[in-house]
Amino acid sequence: MAQPRYLIVADGDFGPMTSKTANSVIRYLPDRTVGVLDRQQAGKTVDDVLGFGGAIPVVASMREGLALGPTAVLVGIAPQGGQLPAEWRVWLAEALDHGCDLWSGLHTFLGDDPLLAERARARGRRILDLRRPPTDLPIASGLAKTVEPLVVLTVGTDCNVGKMTAQLQLIRRLNQQGLRTRFVATGQTGIMIEGWGIAVDAVVADFIAGAAERLVLEGSEDADIVLVEGQGSINHPGYSAVTLGLLHGSCPDALILCHQSSRKYIGDYREAAWLRIPPLKEYIGLYETIGSAVHPTRVVGISLNTYDLSDAEARRECDRAERETGLPATDPVRFDPEPLVSAVADARTRYLETRSSSLESV
Amino acid sequence: MAQPRYLIVADGDFGPMTSKTANSVIRYLPDRTVGVLDRQQAGKTVDDVLGFGGAIPVVASMREGLALGPTAVLVGIAPQGGQLPAEWRVWLAEALDHGCDLWSGLHTFLGDDPLLAERARARGRRILDLRRPPTDLPIASGLAKTVEPLVVLTVGTDCNVGKMTAQLQLIRRLNQQGLRTRFVATGQTGIMIEGWGIAVDAVVADFIAGAAERLVLEGSEDADIVLVEGQGSINHPGYSAVTLGLLHGSCPDALILCHQSSRKYIGDYREAAWLRIPPLKEYIGLYETIGSAVHPTRVVGISLNTYDLSDAEARRECDRAERETGLPATDPVRFDPEPLVSAVADARTRYLETRSSSLESV
Repeated sequence: MAQPRYLIVADGDFGPMTSKTANSVIRYLPDRTVGVLDRQQAGKTVDDVLGFGGAIPVVASMREGLALGPTAVLVGIAPQGGQLPAEWRVWLAEALDHGCDLWSGLHTFLGDDPLLAERARARGRRILDLRRPPTDLPIASGLAKTVEPLVVLTVGTDCNVGKMTAQLQLIRRLNQQGLRTRFVATGQTGIMIEGWGIAVDAVVADFIAGAAERLVLEGSEDADIVLVEGQGSINHPGYSAVTLGLLHGSCPDALILCHQSSRKYIGDYREAAWLRIPPLKEYIGLYETIGSAVHPTRVVGISLNTYDLSDAEARRECDRAERETGLPATDPVRFDPEPLVSAVADARTRYLETRSSSLESV
Repeated sequence: MAQPRYLIVADGDFGPMTSKTANSVIRYLPDRTVGVLDRQQAGKTVDDVLGFGGAIPVVASMREGLALGPTAVLVGIAPQGGQLPAEWRVWLAEALDHGCDLWSGLHTFLGDDPLLAERARARGRRILDLRRPPTDLPIASGLAKTVEPLVVLTVGTDCNVGKMTAQLQLIRRLNQQGLRTRFVATGQTGIMIEGWGIAVDAVVADFIAGAAERLVLEGSEDADIVLVEGQGSINHPGYSAVTLGLLHGSCPDALILCHQSSRKYIGDYREAAWLRIPPLKEYIGLYETIGSAVHPTRVVGISLNTYDLSDAEARRECDRAERETGLPATDPVRFDPEPLVSAVADARTRYLETRSSSLESV
């Protein structure tokens, strides 16, 4: 199947800090994004709005968008209140009529909408609800520890600090070093970019680790390194369960700790500001201890998100993180990702040595 | 509504080590259990089969069972393969015709079966699928830390070591001391016994902690102590996510660590025997550290399950656990639960002192 060319629906919410899914698809798949539908920003380019993404146009209607030649319409923001607005429904039906597939990461499944489901059937198009979990997931049994590649998981000090981005910034560079590297998506945005994966936050509780296990087994084929997209944070009052299920299900050999330098409180509760983000060293202890309870693992590098700092401040934060943790630290979007690339490559070298010596001792 | 009188279906699998749900209902609600349907053991009493439960009869057919006067039929074992056997379906329809409700903790929902759903509607009976999660759960936000009662969660070294039983053994004794104590059920067996609760292993991943939070808020009304039923284990490769979601969502002030003394490996993987159960002190460190990352908590006692040991061995295991941890330890089923009752009452006293001094300092 040819790779889809996306028209992204981000109506009313397209912007650098709001449309996370849309923005990530544009950042990593600019050549496969034909346009963005947002009536508020219509007439601008994506670069005008985001500061990257080049001349991709923002349009005011589905008709204009479809004229740009997409093969799929991708829902790139969550509508207010979670329900599908009536006019989006009309647009999406129009897109199906025009011959497009639909891609959605919403909690509300488009495929369960009778109008859209019927229209897709009639037109022979597909509706991909990326958050709909597979129905045959296993209970994890630690199988992921047996795979051949080095497994690297990103872990965070909070949600939305750059766990997916950190890894996407490393893939090309690792591949250039001859290390066959695969990204394993565990959230809807990653799945849109990679074309496969499981949204682990949408599976039934008993199967979180099982979903991670299955993804690692699938991602390990013909790979030297598997980069597993992390979710949430081990001390997040709402989402820590997903974080730990991923950690124990994926059995990572190495971790990259991700942090947004300016953030002081666990994010969703910033208004109440009751849960302070502890020092990076405490997170390293927590993740290594609890992760190693199932499979030995260690943090090998720090990925900082410094989007709201000056270059000089960002550099200082990287230096400070290196001093505090004794580990390489960088912002892999703003600066050269090289310190993290080397950290992963070195972890792979140590991993191979350990494996061969443990094989010899058998 | 009058409390239901149960006929328990445990056909083909009724026994001391197999029918965990049936057995717990019989242990804690013997006066509300009129009979057990199991063709293999028919003719015996429940006491003949389990060693407790008295003269409750085991019968060979739904007709005989219904003659015992149940108001509800309770599915007390999981059928092989998870699917509802054809003859169970006939029995359950017969029970609805007879005027009984259905209670089920199966992953396959009885209410989704067209025959049973239609029959229940026609007869005005209810089908309670205890594993069906509420549709309006919140993302947890740490609200459970604000409740007035002392919150106590049981945590374990593995699944199926006695986390529910430990607490059920404490309730009456705590109530006798004038401490209004409520049990909060988080699994289908506990829900059958208590009549309310949420099976947290069946909710969507993002809402595990939210389910725990809601349960603690509801359970806190008019209570001095809330005992939250724990699930899984923090180092269980398959179920640790549920364990951590419960821990962070319920914000317990105190923990009781539960362990089966003779078990050496994490249970579901005993055949492969790859994940050794670490010392109790390591578990205490893990649970206290990771739990306190959201709300300060400590382990106040050890509950041992010694069902397969002699009295002398069991006593030695309790002494050994006390020496290793410096905490009170007992098997609250075999021996006097007093050490754990005192540990919880003492935790409540310390909790009130801390609360009043922190209120004074405001």
